[in-house]
Amino acid sequence: MTDQAQLAERPDTFRSISAATGEAEGLEFAVHGPADVDAACAAAAEAFDAYRATDAETRARFLERIGEEIAAIGDPLIEAAMRESGLPRARLEGERGRTIGQLKLFADVVRAGAWRGLRIDTAMPDRQPLPRPDLRLRMVPLGPVAVFGASNFPLAFSTAGGDTASALAAGCPVVVKGHPAHPATGELVAGAIRAAVAASGLPEGVFGHLTGPGNDLGTALVQDPRIAAVGFTGSRGGGLALLKLAQARPVPIPVYAEMSSINPVVLMPEALKARGSALGTAFVGSLTMGAGQFCTNPGLVLAIEGEGLDSFIAAAREALVKAPAATMLTGGIHAAYSQGVESLASHDRVETIARGEVGQGVAQCQAGLFAVDAATFLADHALGHEVFGASSLLVRCRDEAELIRVLRAAEGQLTATIQMDAADTDAATRLVPVLELKAGRVLVNGWPTGVEVAHAMVHGGPFPSTSDGRTTSVGSLAIDRFLRPVSYQNLPAELLPPELHDGGQGGAPLLLDGKPV
Amino acid sequence: MTDQAQLAERPDTFRSISAATGEAEGLEFAVHGPADVDAACAAAAEAFDAYRATDAETRARFLERIGEEIAAIGDPLIEAAMRESGLPRARLEGERGRTIGQLKLFADVVRAGAWRGLRIDTAMPDRQPLPRPDLRLRMVPLGPVAVFGASNFPLAFSTAGGDTASALAAGCPVVVKGHPAHPATGELVAGAIRAAVAASGLPEGVFGHLTGPGNDLGTALVQDPRIAAVGFTGSRGGGLALLKLAQARPVPIPVYAEMSSINPVVLMPEALKARGSALGTAFVGSLTMGAGQFCTNPGLVLAIEGEGLDSFIAAAREALVKAPAATMLTGGIHAAYSQGVESLASHDRVETIARGEVGQGVAQCQAGLFAVDAATFLADHALGHEVFGASSLLVRCRDEAELIRVLRAAEGQLTATIQMDAADTDAATRLVPVLELKAGRVLVNGWPTGVEVAHAMVHGGPFPSTSDGRTTSVGSLAIDRFLRPVSYQNLPAELLPPELHDGGQGGAPLLLDGKPV
Repeated sequence: MTDQAQLAERPDTFRSISAATGEAEGLEFAVHGPADVDAACAAAAEAFDAYRATDAETRARFLERIGEEIAAIGDPLIEAAMRESGLPRARLEGERGRTIGQLKLFADVVRAGAWRGLRIDTAMPDRQPLPRPDLRLRMVPLGPVAVFGASNFPLAFSTAGGDTASALAAGCPVVVKGHPAHPATGELVAGAIRAAVAASGLPEGVFGHLTGPGNDLGTALVQDPRIAAVGFTGSRGGGLALLKLAQARPVPIPVYAEMSSINPVVLMPEALKARGSALGTAFVGSLTMGAGQFCTNPGLVLAIEGEGLDSFIAAAREALVKAPAATMLTGGIHAAYSQGVESLASHDRVETIARGEVGQGVAQCQAGLFAVDAATFLADHALGHEVFGASSLLVRCRDEAELIRVLRAAEGQLTATIQMDAADTDAATRLVPVLELKAGRVLVNGWPTGVEVAHAMVHGGPFPSTSDGRTTSVGSLAIDRFLRPVSYQNLPAELLPPELHDGGQGGAPLLLDGKPV
Repeated sequence: MTDQAQLAERPDTFRSISAATGEAEGLEFAVHGPADVDAACAAAAEAFDAYRATDAETRARFLERIGEEIAAIGDPLIEAAMRESGLPRARLEGERGRTIGQLKLFADVVRAGAWRGLRIDTAMPDRQPLPRPDLRLRMVPLGPVAVFGASNFPLAFSTAGGDTASALAAGCPVVVKGHPAHPATGELVAGAIRAAVAASGLPEGVFGHLTGPGNDLGTALVQDPRIAAVGFTGSRGGGLALLKLAQARPVPIPVYAEMSSINPVVLMPEALKARGSALGTAFVGSLTMGAGQFCTNPGLVLAIEGEGLDSFIAAAREALVKAPAATMLTGGIHAAYSQGVESLASHDRVETIARGEVGQGVAQCQAGLFAVDAATFLADHALGHEVFGASSLLVRCRDEAELIRVLRAAEGQLTATIQMDAADTDAATRLVPVLELKAGRVLVNGWPTGVEVAHAMVHGGPFPSTSDGRTTSVGSLAIDRFLRPVSYQNLPAELLPPELHDGGQGGAPLLLDGKPV
């Protein structure tokens, strides 16, 4: 989610806003303009050749060093993030660990070298009717990457988050457009990255950091001809706007925008019968965690009418009415949430199952659970739109066929979840082929809100959950977004990159004449 | 290159046109309309689940069977292609071999299984503070793919060409929009694919074939919501039009358009000194082969002024004036070629080095070699546009710095070539980092017009040589264009696809907890 922070009185600086009070009470930060964008992109382009030529160990150590510098900031980082995001200490300490762990993961990925995609097809000088040339392939980085941080993960998806870590791992300099909802947090992390750049003896342009409250800055950044790709996590409107800008450039560039998802959860009949009440309670835990401000928040629940569903609803209602109000990330996010919830509550075919506690402070969300019949849901496209925050819509289906119709009609999703018991297996077998075409991650008997940073994770999915469903923004596969293949034909060894010399792979996997070695 | 064949008198059929005579003298073919597009896409969508569920051996045998059916057509296929394309028998027999070889390559790729991208991160139920789930990842096919055949490779890049072979290998049904310049050739090949579909017991919708002379058909195909990706080889105008259509859909889809490239060849000073004359002769051979109708035709030559360059020019002139005129693929291509060459010849800063023999028949190209100084080339963007056919522009540079400026200013390319001797190595070392950011394939001491179908081949490159520089349309890596990752979290074995069962990889490579096994 993005929104626009209020402009400070002085046009050349803006202030950090406290999430809890809505007041611009924090430090002042520079409002960067076109000259700053130009300088950052020029420095990134200038640094590109030297940075992409670094060996695996140098690049891996650099990533680890960023993590060490972030850890060295200590509690002031957590305090800044708490003040700016309204998120609690434990969550932010966990997120800091995740951010550092993510940098370490990519350091390991860089060292392991599979991302290089090395291939050698040996020459066949005597082949008839024509000789086969010597062909050697590697992946090269795209060039400087623009990263737009997310408001909802001020550490793990922002300045030194997954996009930055994977782009740097790929050999791309990064220019971050800091999220205006957490400029103090962003500046602390940017300082850590700059310190790591200096300590690693890398050119300064490997990392740039631009700040400002408006959208002009991001527009100028995406339009700069030296930017080769964009990473973004936020709203659908923001992501689509960047995509349009990138496509309209004289040289279009890839945009990896992770935008919106309502993450359907299917409650299977036998599971509902056996543990409908427990599922209702657990569901509300997932729904309300972090004020529901997760890309993978379960905003859509599908179930077939019956007694089990009634138990689920009763337990969910009981849990939800006691759910405390929580401060949302920004006033803008809170306003959008309130509007989305109100439009569900006032829909004449939508039933309000329960609302959470009413908050006292500014920008506090009151959780909501709603229900609608499948026919209405299928007929009203707007009911399928994301309400970012702790809001979910239960779709009551008559039977399995109707439930599958709802799933097929849904937009692309980051996740899709099945809650099932062993006796549901047959029916679930029919669901998996539908869900795997609709989402990047399919879960059984869990909740989608935990996203493991791992090798087999996909945090991505068909449009509009992301702008490019062929990728992931979490996990080691994310590095592939910033690479492209180059083939070298009959190059003498002196001209070949070291990793394509005979025996020069340094442990990286090689496909030799089509066989892995 | 695409162009629009003349509409036949009867609106529901059109005729095959002989390249040599320009006459619509061949068989009649259906002009398909919106209802045909709808039927083909519906059948493809219907076939998708069954086709993507085929095991590796079934799918590999199907691809091989297509090759066998193409071979079984025998000489009538070569004769149809000769008549429709004007290309000579030897070239088309070679191209048929390449087409069948390509299908066999993808059959091997399907069996080897690296394309599945299998990853398993094992569960850690006791991890603190939270357990790690079981995560398993595989690549799944995108869905039905629309393929637009190329006029210049009526076999290897058309109905059963590289796009079709790689999409089918990935598990995607294919709907081909046959090129109107070779409908008879296309229909023979489509029949071979249909026979292979039937013989393999696959649903008919795995392959669809639409014919017609206009652009409406392709527009309707790309806009159909069931189409999930597009493969295209042709002109920049055609590719960009499809890209725009695909981006404007409610659900945008990837377009892999291979569009235009002038394939710079750098003649290094020592090589010119040692063998300028031999290089000139060999260059003309590459330039005029197949009437210059290759995507990788060397349309731009860069060299530093000097005696060696004079020898090159003299030899090239001598070879070129004797170059026989050759029939081009279509009247439209010939007209565009003539216009492009004339605009070079009439440019007041461009010198005509030589023209080839004047043709007698219709649509015969007269080869052309031109020269211009680097400053003019840098100032006039239009001089860098592709002239499809046997036309090339030599850019005379004062020194290495100017030569590098020209390369940096060039658009994205499919290939970049260095002709060098050992004494050029130092200077060539400075060129490679520039060329590898500009092109998908870098060659030394060869000519770009041969494109090996192999594992380490890249036939792709930065925009506008293609619409997506992260891929290749030739070679085994092309299969990746039609796949996306899906992660499965805590699925019971009964719900997992077979290749993600413990030990179920059937020889396909697996990344287990981040380590290749």
